[in-house]
Amino acid sequence: MNGICSTPAQVCHERMKETQLNLIIIHPDEMDAENRVVLADGRAWHIRKVLKAELGKQLRVGLLMGPLGTGIVESIDKNSVLLKCVFETEPPPQPAVDLLLAMPRPKVMKRLWAQLAALGVGRIVLVNAEKVEKYYFDSHVLEPEFFNARLVEGLQQARCTHLPEVLVRRRFKPFVEDELDLFFRDSLKLLADPNGRKKPADFFQGLDKPERVLLAVGPEGGWTSYELDKLLSHGFELFGMGPRILRTDTACVGLLSVLAEYLRM
Amino acid sequence: MNGICSTPAQVCHERMKETQLNLIIIHPDEMDAENRVVLADGRAWHIRKVLKAELGKQLRVGLLMGPLGTGIVESIDKNSVLLKCVFETEPPPQPAVDLLLAMPRPKVMKRLWAQLAALGVGRIVLVNAEKVEKYYFDSHVLEPEFFNARLVEGLQQARCTHLPEVLVRRRFKPFVEDELDLFFRDSLKLLADPNGRKKPADFFQGLDKPERVLLAVGPEGGWTSYELDKLLSHGFELFGMGPRILRTDTACVGLLSVLAEYLRM
Repeated sequence: MNGICSTPAQVCHERMKETQLNLIIIHPDEMDAENRVVLADGRAWHIRKVLKAELGKQLRVGLLMGPLGTGIVESIDKNSVLLKCVFETEPPPQPAVDLLLAMPRPKVMKRLWAQLAALGVGRIVLVNAEKVEKYYFDSHVLEPEFFNARLVEGLQQARCTHLPEVLVRRRFKPFVEDELDLFFRDSLKLLADPNGRKKPADFFQGLDKPERVLLAVGPEGGWTSYELDKLLSHGFELFGMGPRILRTDTACVGLLSVLAEYLRM
Repeated sequence: MNGICSTPAQVCHERMKETQLNLIIIHPDEMDAENRVVLADGRAWHIRKVLKAELGKQLRVGLLMGPLGTGIVESIDKNSVLLKCVFETEPPPQPAVDLLLAMPRPKVMKRLWAQLAALGVGRIVLVNAEKVEKYYFDSHVLEPEFFNARLVEGLQQARCTHLPEVLVRRRFKPFVEDELDLFFRDSLKLLADPNGRKKPADFFQGLDKPERVLLAVGPEGGWTSYELDKLLSHGFELFGMGPRILRTDTACVGLLSVLAEYLRM
């Protein structure tokens, strides 16, 4: 993945002013045998302009999908930064939540990518539904180059290294029938629904505390009863979070935060 | 407040495509003695174009700061809609959380307004801090006409009627010393901090469950130790939500969701 920040340099710098780079993410392919890496993109710009790093400065780095560590600035000039990295032995714990999301409007998805990576999601499945407009799937926000850059941005903000795996499924039924059980066999499957009588807390009490959760969030108009039945027949349980109807992005961030809180307890 | 949707009609319509109008908010001043109201702004557009309402159709309405109810379409044409409203006797429960937020970048605040209203916040205090840029306070996002329109948008999305009260405080010290205790005397005061050892759950166990919570969220660079000491000396308690560093808007939505969850339990 050379696409850690593959947007044109200027755009990249503009975006980097937007988000905090609390961790410099490095791809394993970028390093030589002695864990040295030359950065010449938005990360180098950030190290010079925002962190104002000089020779010898220690920076927080993280290996994509791997451990956190420290990068020491061994050389720095207008165009590039050379870091010598030392990594911890163990990667940070993996996210314990996955997300099954009815494909939202591209504008919403655009601002959701970085937030999902920052909150920590293992796998993101974007699925079709009756109330999803077909053209949503033609958007550039579903191009790997686009979303990987946004996801890495979220990792760099939140200081984590686990890049979510993204699956795009343009057909609801085959995904639910053929893939859902396979991918998420051991997960507690929770579906946020205004009719859900159970609260999130009800699923995290006693001895049977789940280790992984798959959260389903429907389209803005809701799942149809066919879709709902299908999901329930594949192990999903309804839960409610009060009477408020939230925008997809607000709902995802809120629900993922609540689940993370219970999983950490 | 004639400014429920006081942006030019076109902009308003564009924005309304963005968000769902699950409740039509009506200001008390807009109604006559028999609870009839003539709508001729973005709400009328939405009722005609999105809800495709005809004569006699019943719509969900809510009185700003008051009860929910039903509005029956008594007349409708290209420019306006006449509704006859019947309201429930009791308003929905008030939000039990207030937010003390170090003023974020205007672009972040812009997208936060509607989400805060949708999640339910009683009072929003935007305060200065060492790591807040002074020019943030000169932004149009702090003009009441701007933020009230966004807040109402959030209420209409989430089906609630409690418009958050907004206070802007350009000086940190006088606010904390002179106003904080006065406004939030009986609230549990929680400050999200990476060093917080307690978890949110710790404050919601046993008999002393709080009825109101004031949540403090710092600037992107964090509170200074002076600011932190000042807040702690006025009753704030630290809590942590794991090692991830979240963007201000993600943090606010996530923390408010977690607190709402505990307060509902």
